[in-house]
Amino acid sequence: MAVPRIVTFTTDFGLHDPFVGIMHGVVLSIYPETRIVDVSHSVTSYNVLDGAWTIAQAYRFFPPLTVHVVVVDPGVGSTRRPILAETDDYIFVAPDNGVLSLVEAREPRFTARHITADRYFLQPVSQTFHGRDIFAPVAGWLSVGVAPADFGPEVSDYVRLQLPVVERISADELRGAVVRVDKFGNLITNLSGLDVAALLACPPAKFSLTIGDVTVTRLRSSYAEGGDKELFAILGSSGFLEVAARQASARQMLRADVGAPVTLRIEN
Amino acid sequence: MAVPRIVTFTTDFGLHDPFVGIMHGVVLSIYPETRIVDVSHSVTSYNVLDGAWTIAQAYRFFPPLTVHVVVVDPGVGSTRRPILAETDDYIFVAPDNGVLSLVEAREPRFTARHITADRYFLQPVSQTFHGRDIFAPVAGWLSVGVAPADFGPEVSDYVRLQLPVVERISADELRGAVVRVDKFGNLITNLSGLDVAALLACPPAKFSLTIGDVTVTRLRSSYAEGGDKELFAILGSSGFLEVAARQASARQMLRADVGAPVTLRIEN
Amino acid sequence: MAVPRIVTFTTDFGLHDPFVGIMHGVVLSIYPETRIVDVSHSVTSYNVLDGAWTIAQAYRFFPPLTVHVVVVDPGVGSTRRPILAETDDYIFVAPDNGVLSLVEAREPRFTARHITADRYFLQPVSQTFHGRDIFAPVAGWLSVGVAPADFGPEVSDYVRLQLPVVERISADELRGAVVRVDKFGNLITNLSGLDVAALLACPPAKFSLTIGDVTVTRLRSSYAEGGDKELFAILGSSGFLEVAARQASARQMLRADVGAPVTLRIEN
Repeated sequence: MAVPRIVTFTTDFGLHDPFVGIMHGVVLSIYPETRIVDVSHSVTSYNVLDGAWTIAQAYRFFPPLTVHVVVVDPGVGSTRRPILAETDDYIFVAPDNGVLSLVEAREPRFTARHITADRYFLQPVSQTFHGRDIFAPVAGWLSVGVAPADFGPEVSDYVRLQLPVVERISADELRGAVVRVDKFGNLITNLSGLDVAALLACPPAKFSLTIGDVTVTRLRSSYAEGGDKELFAILGSSGFLEVAARQASARQMLRADVGAPVTLRIEN
Repeated sequence: MAVPRIVTFTTDFGLHDPFVGIMHGVVLSIYPETRIVDVSHSVTSYNVLDGAWTIAQAYRFFPPLTVHVVVVDPGVGSTRRPILAETDDYIFVAPDNGVLSLVEAREPRFTARHITADRYFLQPVSQTFHGRDIFAPVAGWLSVGVAPADFGPEVSDYVRLQLPVVERISADELRGAVVRVDKFGNLITNLSGLDVAALLACPPAKFSLTIGDVTVTRLRSSYAEGGDKELFAILGSSGFLEVAARQASARQMLRADVGAPVTLRIEN
Repeated sequence: MAVPRIVTFTTDFGLHDPFVGIMHGVVLSIYPETRIVDVSHSVTSYNVLDGAWTIAQAYRFFPPLTVHVVVVDPGVGSTRRPILAETDDYIFVAPDNGVLSLVEAREPRFTARHITADRYFLQPVSQTFHGRDIFAPVAGWLSVGVAPADFGPEVSDYVRLQLPVVERISADELRGAVVRVDKFGNLITNLSGLDVAALLACPPAKFSLTIGDVTVTRLRSSYAEGGDKELFAILGSSGFLEVAARQASARQMLRADVGAPVTLRIEN
């Protein structure tokens, strides 16, 4: 059987402390040949939904059998369970708090296990840093070839997040929200390419996208196309509609942030 | 003889500049198979004690023979020596300014050498970036299998830091300090699990922990247990007592920072 | 033929988003054995000159055959071309916007190709994230051994940046500029070691270096030599003159930033 050789980390730990380096060390102590990649350690602190969004954007760009470790874990040390999930191509290791909900929503197969095999943990297990004591060692042992079934029994009552949904307000109107703001200040919404198919059609439908008290009516296909200080809509690389500006921060121009509602109206 | 294959870096260089990438390049130019891990580059600028704290928290989570490079080096280019230290399991490469003092304090064996073998340096050696010109190449050559003794003579007069000590004020009172604030705003003190054994006993002793004008009287075993806006004490993953709050920054709530004195009083 | 095995990334993407992790995943999906190094992701947003400066400082510290990917790409999705450049020792992959101009200026050989072979791209190619869809996969295929010539035809009309030049104002006066401020607040100018040879001679020439309304007249050979709150000139590790202070930020002391003019006058 092929063995996972790549382990990725997605956390809200930041890079201010040695937490991330320590988790790398734990994996390498189990198997020094494992390749480790940091997907992001800038998930908003304690924000499980932001963690779900981050891993969902990234996981499928890695080779099959990659082990994705996701530690956004405000419940560390409480009764929340550590879980291991398998999809057709990947293995995920995470706290059972819904942080894998967006992966589950996209994958035809998603099987979860409660990680109970504490012989694979770093002993003694602290109650404050399961990234080091549980999640990193489990990933390390997976990368040595320990089978997922060895870590614990299958469960079906894992936590699913309440995801921000796109609401249809009328035949021509959708209501979504900003779910992430990227480094450049682009406001990423939860309106998918499918939701906005009319805008991407040929010829494209006219539309108005309202966020706060500003209405955007132009769709651009690249950031560079935008006019000076112009706010526009654009289908971003994650497959979702963004509000953006050319070499400027839409966040600052709009004073909008994660959670801001956006209304899309297709004009006829 | 087994050969070190992992090199870690702990510095105050930050990630704003290409300094860290350049050091990786220097190691890989010597031996492209070496595994490199960044422990942290967010040590407080010029703060040798903070560097000592950071490496002391992390080094033992790496496989035996790992080479740990620690560059917090306000004296770069002056007469301070570059040193190489060996413990039972690890090799350290650092400026001789005390940044390894906490490692030395924890290890039964600690042998230091003055690195004098400039044939292993990147030439010409600058007076401003020994991370690139001395420490990274020495780590690279160690990872190829050059023996520690080849780098220079043993020395015993290496610098030891004045470490912030825990003072016993009375039979029931200890005085310590905040030594680090983590990304979540948890205030990490220098009161060790041993210092606070009475709090961890069964049944636990009652106590009061004073920091600034606030007194904390609850011990929690996980962050999640904390009440809303409650400040509590907790034994952190580094083995030291922290002042923390659930999903909130104790630093902000207390307006306290590194250096703040903390007084622990065991109640009878 | 020897095959590149190391891929580096230099971008303005920051580490807030999963962009960097995704690019690593794309390379490893093509060839899981490739070594990836992050040179810097803190290039100033959209600032091609800052990107040119960053890669120019770092590229030569890597082993021959390293593939350097540089993505500072305000024109992503427009008509600007993706290019591949070869020097004696390295391969570069970047948008054709001048970000390789400082590499070209330093290298005896610099051959550029327009990357047209879209069979090596990640399909469908987005118009907003060519780092993921074009530059990372091209680097991945280079690391598998695909020859540069397979990616597209040679071109000679690639973009060259207007670089900030050092002007000779009189026999004894040079006018340069601050081109980068490092993490410690040191102001790095474009006055090279050659430009300031008189200062480095033995005995050194007297000089005055004016920046804003402050004039610096001391040259130090290491940061540690500086007096308390003293501003001094120093030849930095990048080979350029810096204005610095010991354990303090020259940027803050001078309230100067990138672009600030500096005038060097050699006294007789």
